[in-house]
Amino acid sequence: MGGFKHLVVVKFKEDVEVEVILKGMEKLVSEVDAVKCFEWGQDIESPEMLRQGFTHAFLMTFEKKEDYTAFTTHPTHIEFSATFVAAIDKFVVLDFPSVVAKSPA
Amino acid sequence: MGGFKHLVVVKFKEDVEVEVILKGMEKLVSEVDAVKCFEWGQDIESPEMLRQGFTHAFLMTFEKKEDYTAFTTHPTHIEFSATFVAAIDKFVVLDFPSVVAKSPA
Repeated sequence: MGGFKHLVVVKFKEDVEVEVILKGMEKLVSEVDAVKCFEWGQDIESPEMLRQGFTHAFLMTFEKKEDYTAFTTHPTHIEFSATFVAAIDKFVVLDFPSVVAKSPA
Repeated sequence: MGGFKHLVVVKFKEDVEVEVILKGMEKLVSEVDAVKCFEWGQDIESPEMLRQGFTHAFLMTFEKKEDYTAFTTHPTHIEFSATFVAAIDKFVVLDFPSVVAKSPA
């Protein structure tokens, strides 16, 4: 929780092997120390009217904004980004300092 | 981290007092025990081409999907949802079991 967040919400193209993309993303975050936490999920619950065609969310956490900025220019990230962009039909990216309003006791 | 996530990405209407909405949301999560964690943020970094007009992300964590389902029918949630929906221009909602692929050592 907290830190600086890099949130990517996507809809993959229909012919994409999502498992391959996921493996590439897991390799990426494992190789870049600046990524402190990475979790993702595939929507299983939300009605189509709410999810608007999007299917997956990816959330990376960095200690601070500068670490995220360094990540964006990391060679492994640049290489993976090309693969990722080619695989998605649409996307939303938000980058923000996280405000923790409630946390486990 | 982990658990069942309720992710809401929005663009607020231009005349909305976002602070008021945020206070309502913080009140909501403080009143509902099923919400284990709540963090949010306002994008400060992403180019408009990437954020696609969206400005805020809200992320709630539940222990399990059933807790999220109970939350959706909680009277306080139903009441707040009406206020929230009236305040937003567009949105994406994703609900998913979180896969933690990297976590702090």
